[in-house]
Amino acid sequence: MTKRALRGPPRAVLWRGGVRGRLSLLEQTLLPEKCLRVEIEDVETLWGAIRRLVVRGAPAIGVAAAYGAVLGAREALVRGGDVGAREVAASVLRAIERLATSRPTAVNLFWALDRMRRRLECLLAGPRLPSGEALARGLLAEAKAIHREDAELCRSIGTHGAGLLRDGWTILTHCNAGALATGGSGTALSPVYEACRAGKRICVIADETRPLLQGARLTAWELHRAGVPVTLICDGMAASVFASGRSDCVIVGADRIARNGDVANKIGTYGVAVLARAHGVPFYVAAPSTTFDAGLSNGAGIPIEMRSPLEVTEGFGRPTAPRGIEVYNPAFDVTPARLVTGIITERGVIRATMAAVGGLLRSLAT
Amino acid sequence: MTKRALRGPPRAVLWRGGVRGRLSLLEQTLLPEKCLRVEIEDVETLWGAIRRLVVRGAPAIGVAAAYGAVLGAREALVRGGDVGAREVAASVLRAIERLATSRPTAVNLFWALDRMRRRLECLLAGPRLPSGEALARGLLAEAKAIHREDAELCRSIGTHGAGLLRDGWTILTHCNAGALATGGSGTALSPVYEACRAGKRICVIADETRPLLQGARLTAWELHRAGVPVTLICDGMAASVFASGRSDCVIVGADRIARNGDVANKIGTYGVAVLARAHGVPFYVAAPSTTFDAGLSNGAGIPIEMRSPLEVTEGFGRPTAPRGIEVYNPAFDVTPARLVTGIITERGVIRATMAAVGGLLRSLAT
Repeated sequence: MTKRALRGPPRAVLWRGGVRGRLSLLEQTLLPEKCLRVEIEDVETLWGAIRRLVVRGAPAIGVAAAYGAVLGAREALVRGGDVGAREVAASVLRAIERLATSRPTAVNLFWALDRMRRRLECLLAGPRLPSGEALARGLLAEAKAIHREDAELCRSIGTHGAGLLRDGWTILTHCNAGALATGGSGTALSPVYEACRAGKRICVIADETRPLLQGARLTAWELHRAGVPVTLICDGMAASVFASGRSDCVIVGADRIARNGDVANKIGTYGVAVLARAHGVPFYVAAPSTTFDAGLSNGAGIPIEMRSPLEVTEGFGRPTAPRGIEVYNPAFDVTPARLVTGIITERGVIRATMAAVGGLLRSLAT
Repeated sequence: MTKRALRGPPRAVLWRGGVRGRLSLLEQTLLPEKCLRVEIEDVETLWGAIRRLVVRGAPAIGVAAAYGAVLGAREALVRGGDVGAREVAASVLRAIERLATSRPTAVNLFWALDRMRRRLECLLAGPRLPSGEALARGLLAEAKAIHREDAELCRSIGTHGAGLLRDGWTILTHCNAGALATGGSGTALSPVYEACRAGKRICVIADETRPLLQGARLTAWELHRAGVPVTLICDGMAASVFASGRSDCVIVGADRIARNGDVANKIGTYGVAVLARAHGVPFYVAAPSTTFDAGLSNGAGIPIEMRSPLEVTEGFGRPTAPRGIEVYNPAFDVTPARLVTGIITERGVIRATMAAVGGLLRSLAT
């Protein structure tokens, strides 16, 4: 096990070479049947890849989009001839504008593109206009910084979280908040990878996570590949897992956390939290502090997206329910703070209370 | 709604005509995509149909097997000529022996075949040997009695259960304990059908019930067909349903009930019970008194069958998880009596306690 675990988590997003290099994405839509990488050299191909969910998970999309701005610069450079900074900048701005339309609700996408635009403005605002090549190098450095910072966030979450995990423990997780969703080793799965790296024997039980099966397709795949022992279950089996003492701890990710510690995450998370509490199993949420929404006093204010019935009734390529049936398919649910044992952030593990969250947010502001 | 509800539940098992008639089964493996009936005139075809799960659910299998003994008689009769009782009896015994190998662990199957064998012996033990035709008629009458008694059990459960349901309620159920699983209107779903017949407006939320999707394929189908409004959810959405006040009551079936009221049922049932309790929603189990196992003092003694990983990883005709992954796939879980609000039997609704179950068992013995 240890030998395989040394392989480490997979890399969802990767830049190869210099400013004339290319973006390499793990093709997540083919997992778990095929493990291929898509090598991308132009903005339009990346736009399609984000849209097709070749890359998914808010942090991973943000990192990919940042490199997308560099692809904009690359497109100008490879046209050949003596390419000036203005020409490169125009191409980068077109790339940013185009990529912003790929996934209209992905917050990290806009955040990353905005940061690349500000960097571009900064590079152009110097006393001397840089060469096109130098401008592109500056942008690539910024994209790599975004990528590196995301990986560092993951690693810090992992280090803090790993301290909670004892040798021999089995962790239950829901959905995929792993390496495949970030520019690093994930949020919920990062403590697992870090604990394994530190020599602890950790097993994971992965909820398959209907309707889209991210647990079966992605979490089970990335852990198995990294050599972490993983057991797949259907979502309805979690209660049986807890009752039989098969799980020592739960760690899940989060899409949004309110000021009082209420957590919005993938549908099914709340049920796991209730079951964990009923069986005395600690329930942790792993998320970077950017997940906290200071404007939200509690979870009641989190809008719950309703998704297509077809995800439930035809999710496997053929109908599994009668046509025309009513379907309730919320994308998220809200776990009340009282069920959350602790929130694992890059700053440390905090309690899910108004005071603790407020303290964290204040410490970030200073 | 009322108009469609009058259509009534579908009939999983049906005998058409006299002793030279045929057995008609609803082809459940094609649901929900196609609704076809299989018309069966010989024992071997029935054997294959039981094995292929064309008919499933312990009570329905029992009823089909009873008619299978009649098919044995039919085979002798249609060979033509003057067929004597001995020839018919031999063919019936061959049928009984053959059908007993179709699903080796189905209790109702053995029970029904045994009852047909005893009826055969009784018919042969009279002072005068009957004609082959008369023997077959006697067996058909017995099979119809088994069928009618099962339908009556369902109806009684329905009547007692319907009294618990208020006009406008929404009932959450798990797996399929409906008409498709019995010779009548089901166990868990019978109270719903009876309440609708009595003019109450009842809606059902059906857990899809992974891994085999009996909720999506069968429960949603039979309710929709009968005109009962049904909403399909993934198993992990039940907590969200309860938290949002969308369900007033849970009714599930049971595979086996211990003397103290602990209930073994389809995997996922226990989780629903914990969630129902956490949200103050009553949780009922509907089952005939034959489901009680007097030899079992509590649920800890119920062996839990572990099933193939392929049901989880390749349940939809293509892999949804990495090859070679560990899978935990128990067929059942055990819901402790303390989470059961009541058990709806054909004798009335009882509490899930040692005293109440003991009282019921004693009343059956007298």
